[in-house]
Amino acid sequence: MLKKPSIPKGTRDFNPEEVSRRNYIFSTIKETFSLYGFQPIETPSFENSETLMGKYGEEGDRLIFKILNSGDYLSKVDDKLYSEKDSNKITAKISEKALRYDLTVPFARYVVQHQNEITFPFKRYQIQPVWRADRPQKGRFREFFQCDADVVGSTSLWQEVEFVQLYDAVFSKLGLKDVTIKINNRKILSGIAETIGAEDKLIDFTVALDKLDKIGEEGVKKEMREKGISEDALQKLQPLFSFKGDNNEKLSLLKNMLINSNLGMKGVEELEFITKNIEILALAAASLQIDVTLARGLNYYTGAIFEVSAPAEVNMGSIGGGGRYDDLTGIFGLKDMSGVGISFGLDRIYLVLEELNLFPETAAENSKALFINFGEKEALYAMKAINSLRKVGVKAELYPDAAKMGKQMGYADKRNIPFTVLAGEKEMEAQSFTLKNMKSGEQSEVTYSDLEKHLR
Amino acid sequence: MLKKPSIPKGTRDFNPEEVSRRNYIFSTIKETFSLYGFQPIETPSFENSETLMGKYGEEGDRLIFKILNSGDYLSKVDDKLYSEKDSNKITAKISEKALRYDLTVPFARYVVQHQNEITFPFKRYQIQPVWRADRPQKGRFREFFQCDADVVGSTSLWQEVEFVQLYDAVFSKLGLKDVTIKINNRKILSGIAETIGAEDKLIDFTVALDKLDKIGEEGVKKEMREKGISEDALQKLQPLFSFKGDNNEKLSLLKNMLINSNLGMKGVEELEFITKNIEILALAAASLQIDVTLARGLNYYTGAIFEVSAPAEVNMGSIGGGGRYDDLTGIFGLKDMSGVGISFGLDRIYLVLEELNLFPETAAENSKALFINFGEKEALYAMKAINSLRKVGVKAELYPDAAKMGKQMGYADKRNIPFTVLAGEKEMEAQSFTLKNMKSGEQSEVTYSDLEKHLR
Repeated sequence: MLKKPSIPKGTRDFNPEEVSRRNYIFSTIKETFSLYGFQPIETPSFENSETLMGKYGEEGDRLIFKILNSGDYLSKVDDKLYSEKDSNKITAKISEKALRYDLTVPFARYVVQHQNEITFPFKRYQIQPVWRADRPQKGRFREFFQCDADVVGSTSLWQEVEFVQLYDAVFSKLGLKDVTIKINNRKILSGIAETIGAEDKLIDFTVALDKLDKIGEEGVKKEMREKGISEDALQKLQPLFSFKGDNNEKLSLLKNMLINSNLGMKGVEELEFITKNIEILALAAASLQIDVTLARGLNYYTGAIFEVSAPAEVNMGSIGGGGRYDDLTGIFGLKDMSGVGISFGLDRIYLVLEELNLFPETAAENSKALFINFGEKEALYAMKAINSLRKVGVKAELYPDAAKMGKQMGYADKRNIPFTVLAGEKEMEAQSFTLKNMKSGEQSEVTYSDLEKHLR
Repeated sequence: MLKKPSIPKGTRDFNPEEVSRRNYIFSTIKETFSLYGFQPIETPSFENSETLMGKYGEEGDRLIFKILNSGDYLSKVDDKLYSEKDSNKITAKISEKALRYDLTVPFARYVVQHQNEITFPFKRYQIQPVWRADRPQKGRFREFFQCDADVVGSTSLWQEVEFVQLYDAVFSKLGLKDVTIKINNRKILSGIAETIGAEDKLIDFTVALDKLDKIGEEGVKKEMREKGISEDALQKLQPLFSFKGDNNEKLSLLKNMLINSNLGMKGVEELEFITKNIEILALAAASLQIDVTLARGLNYYTGAIFEVSAPAEVNMGSIGGGGRYDDLTGIFGLKDMSGVGISFGLDRIYLVLEELNLFPETAAENSKALFINFGEKEALYAMKAINSLRKVGVKAELYPDAAKMGKQMGYADKRNIPFTVLAGEKEMEAQSFTLKNMKSGEQSEVTYSDLEKHLR
């Protein structure tokens, strides 16, 4: 007996119900992207290693899956290097391709490679899997889908406004209420650091501030002191610790605080443009909240920063995020291409919808009726009806074998098929069908046209 | 200046139009699969190497993309083996995972691994990319999608009947007429080999026969003689060279020829069941033709063999194929699991639809209207209308910047957006919009509700 086969850790098989539910989320997102004027692109699963390596930091490079060259790949490693037996040095010689780590770098590569065919501003979306050799853990996988939408080639803040609306539209359609879209601006964080005289400690300062929720005011101050931020600076920071109220109150407070920082005031202005217009245009299900502690992606975001929190009742954290970056494509030699984008965290959204029981029943693709197979003649009679039903879009199927009735009924039951149709000699003679509701057990003899009416 | 980035040979970027057109084909196939009671599964992009290796022959093994282990992978290679510098031997030590080569082996693995959760007969479909380190050439790629539907767990010939109908349904929906579904049966080929006394030369015999179209009767006979098939055997084979007529005539001829072969007669009976029932149920766009020269997948098919030819007017060859296999899962230790399946050749179908100009215009996702941006106030006025349009499903967007009119119009033009909407001070005052047809150049001032009516 062979060992039962398995799949690599951190990867998943998806059964029909899971695929259908995932597709329900994907298609809701896709439809909305499309409604907002975004167009789909797709890039190859693997890229040349030089495209990916060095773009995600040292840790990222380590997590990229490398593909072994084909053929006698070792023959291209010179003997001296080979004799060192150094995995790091040899990798570049025996592997020229790697699985994509995210969709952003391939998108940047795409924009540069196809710059002459693209009409800018370019609004693209991309929904494809990415791979990371991360340590697998609950909710973290080695293969997972990313759903990204970006616009490149315009600095207009209307894009940020639209992304907030887009998040709201998707989560409304998914029936997910009480979603919070948190917004911040990199320029505000820089402005604060400037104002308190800690410009050189921007990262330390924001990393500490980001923990306000978790470790409280005293915790944050303690960490800042440890990082060398002065008492005087902490004093100036005080207003942030009592940062409350609605977006307009927060904006006033920020204006007071950042009055002497041009960069900071620019950030406040940008934030104000977005919140003001969103207030006028109104959201359906989500709320937009200024959160100055939000500091994700600080090494590449240059303007707006977004993060979406699941409803408080589920303990899930962020289900989406994004922001504005001023130089997406510089790494590939195309300068001054500003962009802004957001992404949806599919796996977490799935868990949230599952926990809140928000998947519609129709999300699971399934047949509406199973025709019981009583033998060759009866099966042909059934197939004719099935044929007609399929032509009008009714999902119907024949049990393939003339097995015992109980087995066939059991099959319909296990597959959750809501109706069975029985047509034996008697029905064939009467040109009728016996339709059975699998839930109630009710059954009745009907003509084909009634059958179609019922199942449609 | 950096070198312009590129992608690995044999891979492709897909631009918005291509993605939309591919999705049009995918969704037509998916809908039909679903209509016929098939349910989707998905498996990981990479499998454990032991799952894939040894399943596709030596040549196949070579074409499988292997993934390098993470970390200091060379430390696990013992020094003696390492010193041999033999790529083949070292691969197994430094690579434990590989990209899937097709969808069949992962499906077999899935069935065995999840056998206790699956309700048999299991009708699954799977549409995912596969990877092969093949030499790239016209129409052959290193990354491409396969679209497979299979039923496992039943030997019923109704499945074969349904697959013929399914092919017909998909190609009808795609508007592809004059598709030929060729059908043969492995048992008939074995029966003929038996009848002519060349059982031990089944492969040589079928490989030669398969070339009848290309090299003609004399060519086939010459090749058979070279392979050691006797004159006596060729004599018995003679009826096949004048194998003409409709399916019923062909069946009569086969019955005469195979009267002394039980296996052969079983094949004829199976073929007859399928063709007879398809004749009664009738096809919409395709024709089903018995073709005894058809010999694809002979090393695994055990019953029906299918191959679909594109319309003769396009020189494309096979756009789909499949067949019955008696032992899908035996390689993973689960015996006696009969299955039958078909697949669609996406890339070739794409080329055929393109050549015959069969892609509907709607296949390209695109915005219906671009609102011209005249500045902040006007943009907000436009955004309110865009908001309302999106709520009723109209794809509309705002040009993000208040750029020159010509630039904005040019953008709509290049993106093939059919309408532009202009709303400046005058329109704002009148609570109206100027709608411009980009094709005809016609424009008129309309209310919001007329605008919606026009664009809907």
